Amino acid sequence: MIIGVLGAGQLGRMLALAGLPLGMRFRFFSTTADACARDVGEVVVGSSWEDESALERFALGVEVVTYEFENVPVGAVEIVSRHAPVLPSARALALAQDRVEEKSFFRSLGVGTPEFSAVSTRAELDAAALELGYPFVLKTRRMGYDGKGQRVVRGATELDAAWGALGSGAAGLIAEAFVKFARELSVIGVRGRDGETAVYPVTENVHREGILRSSVAPAPGLSDAAEKSARAIVTGAMEALGYVGVLAVELFEVNGGLLVNEMACRVHNSGHWTMDGAETSQFENHLRAVAGLPLGGVGMRPGVARAGMVNLIGDHPALGAMLGVEGARVHLYGKEPKPGRKVGHVNFAAGDDAALRAAMGAMERLIRGG
Amino acid sequence: MIIGVLGAGQLGRMLALAGLPLGMRFRFFSTTADACARDVGEVVVGSSWEDESALERFALGVEVVTYEFENVPVGAVEIVSRHAPVLPSARALALAQDRVEEKSFFRSLGVGTPEFSAVSTRAELDAAALELGYPFVLKTRRMGYDGKGQRVVRGATELDAAWGALGSGAAGLIAEAFVKFARELSVIGVRGRDGETAVYPVTENVHREGILRSSVAPAPGLSDAAEKSARAIVTGAMEALGYVGVLAVELFEVNGGLLVNEMACRVHNSGHWTMDGAETSQFENHLRAVAGLPLGGVGMRPGVARAGMVNLIGDHPALGAMLGVEGARVHLYGKEPKPGRKVGHVNFAAGDDAALRAAMGAMERLIRGG
Repeated sequence: MIIGVLGAGQLGRMLALAGLPLGMRFRFFSTTADACARDVGEVVVGSSWEDESALERFALGVEVVTYEFENVPVGAVEIVSRHAPVLPSARALALAQDRVEEKSFFRSLGVGTPEFSAVSTRAELDAAALELGYPFVLKTRRMGYDGKGQRVVRGATELDAAWGALGSGAAGLIAEAFVKFARELSVIGVRGRDGETAVYPVTENVHREGILRSSVAPAPGLSDAAEKSARAIVTGAMEALGYVGVLAVELFEVNGGLLVNEMACRVHNSGHWTMDGAETSQFENHLRAVAGLPLGGVGMRPGVARAGMVNLIGDHPALGAMLGVEGARVHLYGKEPKPGRKVGHVNFAAGDDAALRAAMGAMERLIRGG
Repeated sequence: MIIGVLGAGQLGRMLALAGLPLGMRFRFFSTTADACARDVGEVVVGSSWEDESALERFALGVEVVTYEFENVPVGAVEIVSRHAPVLPSARALALAQDRVEEKSFFRSLGVGTPEFSAVSTRAELDAAALELGYPFVLKTRRMGYDGKGQRVVRGATELDAAWGALGSGAAGLIAEAFVKFARELSVIGVRGRDGETAVYPVTENVHREGILRSSVAPAPGLSDAAEKSARAIVTGAMEALGYVGVLAVELFEVNGGLLVNEMACRVHNSGHWTMDGAETSQFENHLRAVAGLPLGGVGMRPGVARAGMVNLIGDHPALGAMLGVEGARVHLYGKEPKPGRKVGHVNFAAGDDAALRAAMGAMERLIRGG
């Protein structure tokens, strides 16, 4: 069984590492030849995401196509879907690619999101500023990730600069209320072709400069009500979309309640801890789902009370030093160092919270060079 | 860092699956192009194990060379070692390739083995039969595996047939006492470049028709003395050889004591349970050792009291059916079905022996088609 993956970065690489032991083989579509998934499968290199003949070459003979990259143009999915089923569906992908559509979708399910307003003219920006008050966040509706394509607007004097920086609304913008959240959470669900669903324990995430730095699961001190609410949010979204695969929903915890920030129709950085802390990793469960296989358990592994992940951003300490940290499970992506680039992550799984914090702290000190 | 692997079968494939997350890349040497490691690295195909130019192409630019196949000719190792360090050493490899040298080595360390006698003439065979009594086992000194190259001789009338079947002594034979063992065990140790050693819990193995069918670890009901003895055997052998990498020693338990059957200078089928039951798999620890990195923990994972493996021989049930067995961790090798061929294995890890036996039993029934 050949699985086609649109994109060939670290998420594709880790999908393949999870699927090869199930006897799956992998073919990736990428617009660059040196993609890090090259070590674990064939890479079909297209001149662009509109390269129809390369997309067809990619799709011929694969069992199913999925994505590891959230900004795959829907047009590419349409070309590919003439030759093989594409899961999750193009509809879910399109929804996740537009912040206005995405938030409207969750609101239609009765799920809270930060207040927002679509902005395509300067007059709409002024109106949004009045409605939301300062500070608020101005973002492109599409193509943003890791904090790119967004500006915090702290007062009326910053409106012009933010408007200009984000392309004067040409691509469509969204103004969002600035949420003073207690913390960021994410919830990762998976739904099989037969409609079976499962939800991993809710994860607590720490971002810095817009990039995920670390995660811990199950999120410490989360109320039963919030845990239930998070599970209902991801399950409801999957059911509404007839979704197949892993769906990640990013949440803000505010006064004990939850607001949806955004969703990703793929495996997610905040779920990397599942590789070493859960019964079945998000990568394996995504593959099981799209390939029509039974889902694996999503609970914590026996003996693991808390699991965590530390991202390696830009560069990483020497491998030997990382492996010398008690309990470190190192996952490197085979990428060259570059500022801001995710080059790997380190997982930990522990019998209690204190042990997890000690181990993650040791790794964070090593990363800081301490 | 590129790791060179002599051989490109499932053990090489699983080495790569363990090493890719450490940022390692893999290059394999094989005499056939369709080797199952092709999915996880480059395969240099030689016309034979004497193909010097292919061996040189393979060795150029790799950090270290290791093997996944025990019958690598020592001549090939010598060619490769002009270009890159080869670990474990050619000396250890040569020892493991000759059943007489191997048993003599363990005896020189004061470790018991079945009684044996080198046989190269028909007169020596008669003498060995007298000395050992019937039944005894006649084997080729070299190149045997999975029960190939051996015959049980049950009486004087079978001497001629066994002698003829094994090539009339041309390649060198060994006559070994037929050991009425209580069970078969194995012990897997690992030694780093800096001399650090670690030993996995002793494993109990079940063979049928000369092929390993299943393993369970820690071996149930093993006395502390036998456990200590097994650990001392593998550690002593590694120290004596200045060994680097994973060393597997197969043992017979006889009247509570241990006799060495043979050793393998590589990761071993009886250690496959470590992928899902131990803190660090034998594959990852072998790579850490040969690459000069700190070794990982070799204890059982927290919450795992007993782990086990069921081999998939010849063919396997449908993937979906295997994944439907509670707790099954499926590892397929991407090989075409063929009678007697190892095409995969399924691991289980459980909180107690009864749960493990139930899960393994369910998988064995599925394999039998029940």
